[in-house]
Amino acid sequence: MSCISEQLKQLALQSLRLSNPNPRVGCVITTPDGREIGTGHTQRAGGPHAEVMALRDAQARGESVVGATVYVTLEPCSHHGRTPPCCDALIAAGVGKVVIAAGDPNPLVAGQGAERLRAAGVAVEWLPADHEAARASRELNIGFFSRMVRRTPWVRMKMASSMDGVTALDNGTSQWITGEAARADGHAWRARACAVLTGIGTVLEDDPMLDVRLADTPRQPHLVVIDSRLQTPTTARLFNTPANGLPRQLWIYHAVRDAEREAALQTLGATLIPMPSGHGKVDLPAMLGDLARREVNELHVEAGHKLNGSLLREGLVDEILLYLAPQLLGKGAGLTDFGPLQNLQDGVQLAYESVDKVGNDLRILARRQGRDGFLGDMT
Amino acid sequence: MSCISEQLKQLALQSLRLSNPNPRVGCVITTPDGREIGTGHTQRAGGPHAEVMALRDAQARGESVVGATVYVTLEPCSHHGRTPPCCDALIAAGVGKVVIAAGDPNPLVAGQGAERLRAAGVAVEWLPADHEAARASRELNIGFFSRMVRRTPWVRMKMASSMDGVTALDNGTSQWITGEAARADGHAWRARACAVLTGIGTVLEDDPMLDVRLADTPRQPHLVVIDSRLQTPTTARLFNTPANGLPRQLWIYHAVRDAEREAALQTLGATLIPMPSGHGKVDLPAMLGDLARREVNELHVEAGHKLNGSLLREGLVDEILLYLAPQLLGKGAGLTDFGPLQNLQDGVQLAYESVDKVGNDLRILARRQGRDGFLGDMT
Repeated sequence: MSCISEQLKQLALQSLRLSNPNPRVGCVITTPDGREIGTGHTQRAGGPHAEVMALRDAQARGESVVGATVYVTLEPCSHHGRTPPCCDALIAAGVGKVVIAAGDPNPLVAGQGAERLRAAGVAVEWLPADHEAARASRELNIGFFSRMVRRTPWVRMKMASSMDGVTALDNGTSQWITGEAARADGHAWRARACAVLTGIGTVLEDDPMLDVRLADTPRQPHLVVIDSRLQTPTTARLFNTPANGLPRQLWIYHAVRDAEREAALQTLGATLIPMPSGHGKVDLPAMLGDLARREVNELHVEAGHKLNGSLLREGLVDEILLYLAPQLLGKGAGLTDFGPLQNLQDGVQLAYESVDKVGNDLRILARRQGRDGFLGDMT
Repeated sequence: MSCISEQLKQLALQSLRLSNPNPRVGCVITTPDGREIGTGHTQRAGGPHAEVMALRDAQARGESVVGATVYVTLEPCSHHGRTPPCCDALIAAGVGKVVIAAGDPNPLVAGQGAERLRAAGVAVEWLPADHEAARASRELNIGFFSRMVRRTPWVRMKMASSMDGVTALDNGTSQWITGEAARADGHAWRARACAVLTGIGTVLEDDPMLDVRLADTPRQPHLVVIDSRLQTPTTARLFNTPANGLPRQLWIYHAVRDAEREAALQTLGATLIPMPSGHGKVDLPAMLGDLARREVNELHVEAGHKLNGSLLREGLVDEILLYLAPQLLGKGAGLTDFGPLQNLQDGVQLAYESVDKVGNDLRILARRQGRDGFLGDMT
């Protein structure tokens, strides 16, 4: 298995920007003595899953899969979703054994795929929870696991600053603190998310597109705007963000009601979702629950320091993606706007996941301590 | 040579906290056919240099060095300093050949060591300037090269903050944003510096020792306080900082004159150095020149955001040593206090030298772009 682990990981990675909101899954089929006869990864939603792609690949190669061993990074599905259950396809094809890296994260259905296979006489082998391939599969699908287990998206907040934490000069200049490579890398992180979220402040100030332009992607993430008072201009560029010919949603969460404004924004293709907190603001936890119901796995936040501060203050951020430019800027706007705190322990406590040089900048990925417990034992 | 490069580097590294203000130098003596017969590294100032230590090592091992090959990371000295010239010792010992990694950085004397050896019939070989061992030697002695070539110390500014650039909460709490491992690592960087500099603000607020307590060291760095108005309290703990039994200076740079205050501080062991800028402040560039004359190679700055801002504004900082804690703190005091700038290009432009995890924190070393040009071609 260990030599297949890397291959499975690479296959699953090919679904990274493709399969949302479905999980990223890779599959390798071998003869019982280990010769590869088919591989596949999950396609875009509504398209075939990894197992079916691998079965088709074997067929295209003229290989028989009767009695074959199927390695798959996530438990094959047993229910009719957008496609028929993969279990049925595997059973119908006559495979002999299925080796599963990670279980279905949905506690209501976990194990049913394996059970269905066993009931049909297919041998099932689970990898240990701490197996490299099992960990990689869960980590790659952190958003899917979050939605299934926690019923809320995995919230990743992207920020960029100088080494002294400055995001903009006092005169407002902020383009560009980080370099081209970091900006392109930021787009790659947008591309893997189900949706990109921003606030009305950013819409009014920067009129951003928030699409993926600097990285290749087969689909564009959905857009989410937090706009308590329905201030989104009908001329906002968000309405014209390209969707790569696929359905792409623009969800506007608001607190106040205004039938005329709502209708105007709906006409432009937005979905208006009233979600008031009772204080004239959008109820952020409720919004996240709603986004999970709308099948958002990873939510990529690119907002200003006020909304960032609100999300952090309410404990809703799971991960920080910080691009740190190799410069000092002195006085200016900071990264976050919460507090002032009384104790250092009250800060948002994180742990570094990875640090990489991207162009001349640093990319720092830091995760809220203990926040990924739903993935199971990752030690 | 390539297999000796690492050994030479490790030997020179043993002088890191020991030989100041002399350069960190390693030496390996082999027979002409490459068998190692002696090694050495430069001892504390006034003690033997690497070459003499290696000659003594060979003697202790009962090996003859007549006709031997001597590998040394820096050109052997040809002048009488605190010790007799190493060239003379090598010539007297009858060695056959000297392989030199890096030349003496002092443009007035560079090459004279090699010349003296050649004149005495010893073969001299220079490594190419871009040879790994040559680069490592110059990099390890960046402060010595800076003092010799630029006539100013290599200024390394140590800072610590949360990921959002906060160094202290609004209520002043700052201990400890970074963890124990990062603090110990910070002491290791103090230990390699010739002197540690701070400002009167930090002295009055924190009453720091600024000695090396959390790392092993054979010597303590000198102390420098910028105290324009002679406000250093006679009770300051700086006056009692241990010196490991070695001469350790406390230099106080000031702008105003006050015979009584000066005398009181002198009585406590401080050296008072008036260095007014004409604006009631200390002339910082002149102070650096004076510190170079006092044989300061690497100057380690641990100051508050005001003095940090002044040093950065005047372009006097060569390198930033930033410990970044994995947390967000929101509102609070920032890292630096200069600007506001009008253009991003006016910021202090750096390049990342290294990024390492130290405990749970990140240690980021970033260097002013082009500032290390005096080291020669490091590409």
